[in-house]
Amino acid sequence: MAKIAFIGAGSLGFTRGLVRDLLTFPTMRDATIALMDIDRERLDFANRAVQTIVDRGGYPAKVVPTLDRKAALKGADFAVCTILAGGVQVWRHDIEIPKQYGVDINIGDTRGVAGIFRALRTIPVMVSICKDMERLCPDALLLNYTNPMAMLCRAMQRASRIQLTGLCHSVQGTAGMLAKWLGAPMSEITYVCAGINHQSWYIQYRRNGKDVIPELRRKVATDKKIYREELVRNEMFLNLGYYVTESSGHNSEYNWWFRKRPDLIRKYCPDHKGAGWNPGEYAYIVKHYLAREKSWKKETKEWFAKGAPIKLERGHEYAAAIMHAVLSGEAFEFNGNVPNTGIVTNLPPDVCVEVPVVANRRGLNAIHVGALPPQCAALNNVNIASEEMAVEAALSGDPDLVFQSVAIDPLTAAVLSLGEIRKMVGQMLRKNRTHLPQFKSVEL
Amino acid sequence: MAKIAFIGAGSLGFTRGLVRDLLTFPTMRDATIALMDIDRERLDFANRAVQTIVDRGGYPAKVVPTLDRKAALKGADFAVCTILAGGVQVWRHDIEIPKQYGVDINIGDTRGVAGIFRALRTIPVMVSICKDMERLCPDALLLNYTNPMAMLCRAMQRASRIQLTGLCHSVQGTAGMLAKWLGAPMSEITYVCAGINHQSWYIQYRRNGKDVIPELRRKVATDKKIYREELVRNEMFLNLGYYVTESSGHNSEYNWWFRKRPDLIRKYCPDHKGAGWNPGEYAYIVKHYLAREKSWKKETKEWFAKGAPIKLERGHEYAAAIMHAVLSGEAFEFNGNVPNTGIVTNLPPDVCVEVPVVANRRGLNAIHVGALPPQCAALNNVNIASEEMAVEAALSGDPDLVFQSVAIDPLTAAVLSLGEIRKMVGQMLRKNRTHLPQFKSVEL
Amino acid sequence: MAKIAFIGAGSLGFTRGLVRDLLTFPTMRDATIALMDIDRERLDFANRAVQTIVDRGGYPAKVVPTLDRKAALKGADFAVCTILAGGVQVWRHDIEIPKQYGVDINIGDTRGVAGIFRALRTIPVMVSICKDMERLCPDALLLNYTNPMAMLCRAMQRASRIQLTGLCHSVQGTAGMLAKWLGAPMSEITYVCAGINHQSWYIQYRRNGKDVIPELRRKVATDKKIYREELVRNEMFLNLGYYVTESSGHNSEYNWWFRKRPDLIRKYCPDHKGAGWNPGEYAYIVKHYLAREKSWKKETKEWFAKGAPIKLERGHEYAAAIMHAVLSGEAFEFNGNVPNTGIVTNLPPDVCVEVPVVANRRGLNAIHVGALPPQCAALNNVNIASEEMAVEAALSGDPDLVFQSVAIDPLTAAVLSLGEIRKMVGQMLRKNRTHLPQFKSVEL
Amino acid sequence: MAKIAFIGAGSLGFTRGLVRDLLTFPTMRDATIALMDIDRERLDFANRAVQTIVDRGGYPAKVVPTLDRKAALKGADFAVCTILAGGVQVWRHDIEIPKQYGVDINIGDTRGVAGIFRALRTIPVMVSICKDMERLCPDALLLNYTNPMAMLCRAMQRASRIQLTGLCHSVQGTAGMLAKWLGAPMSEITYVCAGINHQSWYIQYRRNGKDVIPELRRKVATDKKIYREELVRNEMFLNLGYYVTESSGHNSEYNWWFRKRPDLIRKYCPDHKGAGWNPGEYAYIVKHYLAREKSWKKETKEWFAKGAPIKLERGHEYAAAIMHAVLSGEAFEFNGNVPNTGIVTNLPPDVCVEVPVVANRRGLNAIHVGALPPQCAALNNVNIASEEMAVEAALSGDPDLVFQSVAIDPLTAAVLSLGEIRKMVGQMLRKNRTHLPQFKSVEL
Repeated sequence: MAKIAFIGAGSLGFTRGLVRDLLTFPTMRDATIALMDIDRERLDFANRAVQTIVDRGGYPAKVVPTLDRKAALKGADFAVCTILAGGVQVWRHDIEIPKQYGVDINIGDTRGVAGIFRALRTIPVMVSICKDMERLCPDALLLNYTNPMAMLCRAMQRASRIQLTGLCHSVQGTAGMLAKWLGAPMSEITYVCAGINHQSWYIQYRRNGKDVIPELRRKVATDKKIYREELVRNEMFLNLGYYVTESSGHNSEYNWWFRKRPDLIRKYCPDHKGAGWNPGEYAYIVKHYLAREKSWKKETKEWFAKGAPIKLERGHEYAAAIMHAVLSGEAFEFNGNVPNTGIVTNLPPDVCVEVPVVANRRGLNAIHVGALPPQCAALNNVNIASEEMAVEAALSGDPDLVFQSVAIDPLTAAVLSLGEIRKMVGQMLRKNRTHLPQFKSVEL
Repeated sequence: MAKIAFIGAGSLGFTRGLVRDLLTFPTMRDATIALMDIDRERLDFANRAVQTIVDRGGYPAKVVPTLDRKAALKGADFAVCTILAGGVQVWRHDIEIPKQYGVDINIGDTRGVAGIFRALRTIPVMVSICKDMERLCPDALLLNYTNPMAMLCRAMQRASRIQLTGLCHSVQGTAGMLAKWLGAPMSEITYVCAGINHQSWYIQYRRNGKDVIPELRRKVATDKKIYREELVRNEMFLNLGYYVTESSGHNSEYNWWFRKRPDLIRKYCPDHKGAGWNPGEYAYIVKHYLAREKSWKKETKEWFAKGAPIKLERGHEYAAAIMHAVLSGEAFEFNGNVPNTGIVTNLPPDVCVEVPVVANRRGLNAIHVGALPPQCAALNNVNIASEEMAVEAALSGDPDLVFQSVAIDPLTAAVLSLGEIRKMVGQMLRKNRTHLPQFKSVEL
Repeated sequence: MAKIAFIGAGSLGFTRGLVRDLLTFPTMRDATIALMDIDRERLDFANRAVQTIVDRGGYPAKVVPTLDRKAALKGADFAVCTILAGGVQVWRHDIEIPKQYGVDINIGDTRGVAGIFRALRTIPVMVSICKDMERLCPDALLLNYTNPMAMLCRAMQRASRIQLTGLCHSVQGTAGMLAKWLGAPMSEITYVCAGINHQSWYIQYRRNGKDVIPELRRKVATDKKIYREELVRNEMFLNLGYYVTESSGHNSEYNWWFRKRPDLIRKYCPDHKGAGWNPGEYAYIVKHYLAREKSWKKETKEWFAKGAPIKLERGHEYAAAIMHAVLSGEAFEFNGNVPNTGIVTNLPPDVCVEVPVVANRRGLNAIHVGALPPQCAALNNVNIASEEMAVEAALSGDPDLVFQSVAIDPLTAAVLSLGEIRKMVGQMLRKNRTHLPQFKSVEL
Repeated sequence: MAKIAFIGAGSLGFTRGLVRDLLTFPTMRDATIALMDIDRERLDFANRAVQTIVDRGGYPAKVVPTLDRKAALKGADFAVCTILAGGVQVWRHDIEIPKQYGVDINIGDTRGVAGIFRALRTIPVMVSICKDMERLCPDALLLNYTNPMAMLCRAMQRASRIQLTGLCHSVQGTAGMLAKWLGAPMSEITYVCAGINHQSWYIQYRRNGKDVIPELRRKVATDKKIYREELVRNEMFLNLGYYVTESSGHNSEYNWWFRKRPDLIRKYCPDHKGAGWNPGEYAYIVKHYLAREKSWKKETKEWFAKGAPIKLERGHEYAAAIMHAVLSGEAFEFNGNVPNTGIVTNLPPDVCVEVPVVANRRGLNAIHVGALPPQCAALNNVNIASEEMAVEAALSGDPDLVFQSVAIDPLTAAVLSLGEIRKMVGQMLRKNRTHLPQFKSVEL
C-alpha cells in the first residue's frame, strides 16, 4: 500500500490531475494520498477535489490533508513537490527590476537573472524538504515540478542523498508538436532528447527508424504556417540544426539572439495569430498570476459548484507512470532531470541534465547519451556555467557569486555592461533581503 | 516483416530454441529466418528443425538456409552469431599445452591463456562479419553468443560501427540460483549486476526493495548444502562480499586463488554430489566435445526420428525479447556486453563491460551503474588489462603483446615464471600458426 | 651545431630581435640560421640585418636565406613561425565587413568573427608547414608566433604529431605591469597564469610568497591613474576577481560587456591620456598596417642607412631561452599554448590552453594547474566552444560550422540576431572565397 | 632565514648527509635546523653530528634539538620526515608471519602484506604530523622519506591539505646504473620515468636525444655480467620491454613471477658474485636491523671518536636542491610522489604516482606524462588497487578491507588461497593489535 505525499498540494489543477491518473494504476488504487500545503484554504480545496475523485471512482485510497510537512512525508514512498516559495508579489520583482535596466523577460522561472533569484529563494526550502525526507522516508523517490528545475534539482542533488528527479512536460510536448507537423502518429516516432531543462535537443528524431530531421527542416523552412507557430525555436532549428524543447517565448530568454533589442522582440516574439502558447510577451506569467490573484478563489468555488467536473480516465501526468514503474517493475522511460554521471559527455560532470531515464523497481536509471552537437552543447554550457555559480551562491550565501552568475547569463550579458549588471543585481539582492536567510550580507 | 540472420546456425540446440521463442512474438511470426553455416550437414539439420517449428506452429515465417554469409546478412534486421572458429581438434591445444606447464584449465573459453588463443583465432572472423554487415545491413543489430565474449565484443566495438551486444545466460542464471537459496520467487527480486562477462557482480540484490545480501551471506556461511553447491563462488562471496556470475569452475580460472596448486583444486573444485553443473574439472568442455564428436550426428538423427520433440511455448532465450523490444518499442532490460561509456566508473573507458541495458525501438541503451566495490573492480581490472592487450595483439598481430597479455593472466601468473610463460606462449603460437593469418611472425 | 629555421623571416623586427638573443647563448652562437620568406625583398632585408648581427658579434653562426620552405626546414632543430597568410588588403575585410553590421572590432586577430576568418585562411598553411616538418625535421620543435594563436595551435595539434607551442608576450607583460603597480621588483613575484591565449588568468599572484591579489584589488579600485591605465581589464578584475592577460582593447573583444553599444565603447575604450598601448580603438591594427604599407620599406632602408642600429645584449625574446633549455637541459619555465591534457580541469580536454610549461632537454613539459575560478572558466569556455567549431570548420571546410562558430562569439552574439549573423558570415565567406581552398562551397 | 624541521632526526646517516648538503646552498647556510626525535639518545647523536658540520663549515646556521614535535614544526618552511613507527621487534612480524604461510618476503617495506601492515601502523602518525603542520606551519612543504612511500603519501594527500611529496633515491640510482651499462655519462642522458614508488618505468631513455632502450635491451640480453647484476629487473626488462626502478630484490616482491616457488627464488634471487646490492634474500633488511640493534650505538660512538669524519662538499641528497629551488626560484626537476591529477592517464585519478616534478618558488609542479605502456600500467594498477584498499582500511579501521587488500597483493595471491590469506591476515592483525588504535576490532 503505497503512500504518496504531495508537498504544495494547493496547486489544485496539478494535484487533481495527478491523483486522477495514479488511481488508475492497480498498484496505487489503495494508496494513502497525503496532501500538504502551507495555505489552509488551498489545502482544503485540494482535499475536497481529491476526495471527490476517490469517491467517484470508488477507490480504496485514503486521503490525508495536513499542514504539517513532516506528517505528510513520514513513511512516504513518493513525494511530489509543486511548491512556490514566495507569492507573485515577491517574484514580480524578478521580472520588473531587470526591465528597468532594459532586460526584457518573458517568463523568468528557469534561469537568467529572474530564474536565479527564484532559485536563491527556493533552494533553502527544497533542501529542507530533502533533509526531512532523509529522516522520515529515506528510500522515497522525490518527483519535483517546482522551477527553476535545473538549479533546484542540482542543489538538492548536491546537498542530499535522496533519490530525486525533476519532471517537465516540454520534452513530450515538443516531440508531439513535431510529429503533428510531420503528419506522423507518435507511435511511429522515436527520439533521443538531451540537454538541460527547457533547453534539451532532439539529437535523434526518427519515424519508423528513419531520420526525419532533414524532412522537418524542409517543412519549417518552407511552410509559413508551421514556421510562424514557433518563431524563435524555428529560427534556432534552421540555424543550429536541432530542435529545442520548451516554448519560443521561454527560449528567447536563454540565449543572446532574440530579446536584446526591442526590434528583435517585435520581430521574433509577436503574439500573432497562429503562434504557439507562448511566443514571448514581456512578463507573460507575472501578468497571468496578477490577474488570477483575484479570480482564482472564485473560479475554484465555481468549479466545485458545477459538481467538480473531472473525468476519471487516465490523463498525461507521467509522474503516475513513474510511480507505477517503481511499484510494479514495468519499465517506463521518460526524460528526467538527473546528475550528469557521464551521460552527456560534453556537458560538465555532476550538473543537472535532462536525459532519458528508465524507471523500474530499482528506481531511476539514467541512459547513456554521448556527445551533443557542439553548437547545442555550447549553448547549454553557457547556461550551466551561470546556474552552477547561482547554485553555489544559494548554498553558500555569496553575493559576489550571484553577480557573477548573472553577469554571464546570455540575455543579461547581451544587454548590459558589468557595471550595469552589478547595479541591477545589487538592487535585486536588497529587494529580496528578507527572503535570503542564507546570506550574511547582500552587499556587493 | 523482420529478417533475422543466424550465423553459425548449425548450433542446433540454440538455433531451434531461439527460433521457437522469437516466433511467439507477434512482431516476428512472419519473419524471414536466414540460416547460415559453413557446414552443409549441420545446416541441413538446423533447417529441418526450424522448418518443423514453423510448420507445427502454422507461422507465416519463411526459412532460408544458405552457405553464403552475405546472402544471409543482406537486408537483415538482426544477426545472431553462434560460430565456432576452429573445431575441437584445434582448440583442445588451448587447454592441453598449458597443462604441460602446470596451468590447469577447466573450460578455457573466456580469458586466460586458453581464452586468449581462442580470441586470436576468432577475432578476424568476427570483424569480417561486421564488415559484411556494414555493407549489407548497416542498421542491423548484432547479437553475439560466441566466446570469448568480452574480447570478441571489444574487438568488434573497436573495429566496426555496427551496433552489437554480447549475450550470456549467466547473469539471469545466477540471480535465479540466489533467489532459490533465499526461497524467494524472482518476481520479488531486483538487482544491479555489473562487471565483465563471466565476472559480473551483484552489487545490489534486493527482495521487495530490501537488501538481502546480508541474509545471503548468512545462508552461504551456515547452510552446508548451499555452500557446497558452489564452492569457489561461495568462497569468493564470503571473502569479497559480493556474488559473482558464472559457474564455480569458470570462476576458478579467473583469479589466483583456486587452481594454482593441485591440493587447492582438489579442495575447491571436486565433482562431488550436490555441486553445481561445473565445479571445475580439468578440461571439462574439451572432454565433452571430444565425446560428442562421435555421437552428435547419431543423436541428432535420433531426435528427428523421434519426431523432433520440441514444444512451441516461449522459453528463456532472451535474444527474442530483445528483438521484440526493438521492433515493438516495448522496453526490455537485460545484462549485455557493451562499451564502457562511463557506465562503470572504476573500470577503464571503452572496454567491454557487462551491464544493464534497455532495448527499445532506438536499439540498445546502456544504464549508468557507477563504481564497483574496490575489491570487485580490482579483479575485473586485472582481467581487463590482460584482455585489452590480447585484443590489441589480435588486431595488430603482435606476438609480444600476446605474451604480455598471458603473463598477467591471474592463473598463469600464479603458476609460472616469466620465462616459463614465454616458452608456453611460444609453443602455442607455433601450434596455432595456420589459424593466425593476421600475424606476420609468431616468434617471440 | 643547432639549425634554426625562421618561416616568415621577413618579419624584420622580430627576426633580428630573436637572432640577437639566441646568439648570446653558448649553445647557439655557432647555429645555422635559415631565413625563409615568400617575399624576396623582405627576405633580403632580414638577411642583411641578421648577417650584420652575426658579423658585429663575431659569432661563428651561419646565415642561409632562402625562398624555399623545405630547404629551410630540412634538418632543423627548431622552426620559428611568424607568417601572415594574406596581406592587409585581404584581412581588412575581417574588420570592415562586421562594422557594416554593427560589430565593432579593435584588433580582430585572435578570435571572434575576424579571428575566425583569419584562422580559416591560415590553418591550411600552418598544417602544410607541419606536414613538411614531419618529413624534413620530425624531431624539431615548432615555436609559433602567428595569430590567431589558440586556433592555429589547436589545428596543428589535431592534424600533426610535430611538437609545438605558441608563444605570446602578454603573460609576462601583464605580470610585469601588475608588479609595477605594486611597486615590486619581478624577482619578488611568483604567479600561476592559466587559461587560453589572450584570456589567461592570474589565479595565483604572490609577492615573496604572500598573496597580493587583495592588495592589487585595493590599488585598482582606489588609484585613479592605475584604474584608467587599463579600463576594460580593471573592470574585469574588479568584477570577476582575477586579472586577465592582453591589452584592454583586445579584451573588450572577447566578451559581451564592453563593445556592444557605442556608449560603452566611448566609456570603456577611449584613447585618453594615461591609457595603455591599446585601449580599444576601432580597427586599431588595420589602420596601423594600412599606414605602414607605404612607409615600411622607406623606414627599413633608413634603418640600414643609419648603420642598422641594434645592440647585441640579450633582450626579452624568450624563444631563445626555450631553445637554449632544450639544447642545454637548463630548465626554463614560460607560459605556452599546448593541448589540454588534463592541465586545466574545467576547460575541455585537448583544446589549446595557455599554461606554465617547462622546457628542458626532453622538450616541452606542461605543468598541472587544476581548476580555474568558475567565472573565469566560463568566459574561456564560451570562446573555446566558438574556436573549436571554427577549427573543425577550417579543417573540414564546412560553412555551416563557420556560421555556428561566429554565432556564439560573445561580441557578435551581443550585437546581432541569428539572421543578421548568417547574412554577415555569408558576405565574408564570399569575400574570402579565393583564400579558402578547403571549402567546396561557401554557401550557407 | 629558512627553518627546516627534521622529524625522526635520529636517522643519523640521513640527517647528517642532508644537513651537509643543504648548508652548501646560499639560501640555507643561515637556516634554523630543528632536530626532533622521540629517542633522546639518537637525538643527541644527531645534534652532535649536525653541530659538528655547522661548526666545521663556519655556517651561520642554528641547530635546535627537541623532543617536542610541535616545537620543531612551528614556523617551519620545510619538514623532512624519516620516522619509523615501531622498532624492528614490531615489524619483524610483518616478514616472519607470512613466512610461516609460505610467503617469502625480501624487504617488506613498500607494499604487499608486510608493507600493508607497516602502513596500518604508520599512517595515523603521518596524518597527525600533517595535522600539526596545518596549525603550526600551514605553508610548509613536507618531504617524506618514510616507507611505505606510496601508501603514506596517499593517506596524507587524502587526509590533509599540506603540500607534500615523497622522495626516493631509486629513480636516479637506476638511471645512473643504466647509463653506466651504456658507457654514457649522465650528462648525455635524458629520461621520463613514471609509475608508482619502487615500480616506476623508464618509458623514455635517451642519449643525446636518441632512444637507447633498444641498445640497452641488446646489452642486457647479451652481456652476462650485466644480466646477472640485476636478475629480476633484467628479466622484467627483457619480457616487458621497459626498465623498472628499485633493486631486483624489491621488485621480486611486487609481482607474481619470482618469489612464489623456492626454485624460482633460488634461480632469480641468489646472492651471487656480481649481483647488485639487493638480489632478493629472505628478510634482508630485518636481518640487517636485528644485527644493527646491538652494534649501532657502538658504531656511532666510534664514528664520533674518530672525529666525526664527514666532508663538507655537497653530496646527492636532492631534498636540499628542492628546498633551494623553493627558496631561490631556480627550477629543479626530480621524480616525486604526488597525487595523480591526470599526470599518468592510465593509472587511476588521485592515487599517489611517482612522476617528474619541478620545484620552484611556487612549490611543486607535477609534469604531465600521458599513458604508460599497457603491460607496465597493468602491474602498477594491481598494486595500486591493493594499496588503495589498505589506505582506506588504515584511515577507517576496517579489518575486512585489510584482508581484501592483501588478497590481491600479487605475491600473496600467487602463493595462498583466500582461506589461507584470511588466516594469515587474522594472525597479523592480532599480533599488531596494540599498534592499530584506529581499529575498533581486528576480527575478520
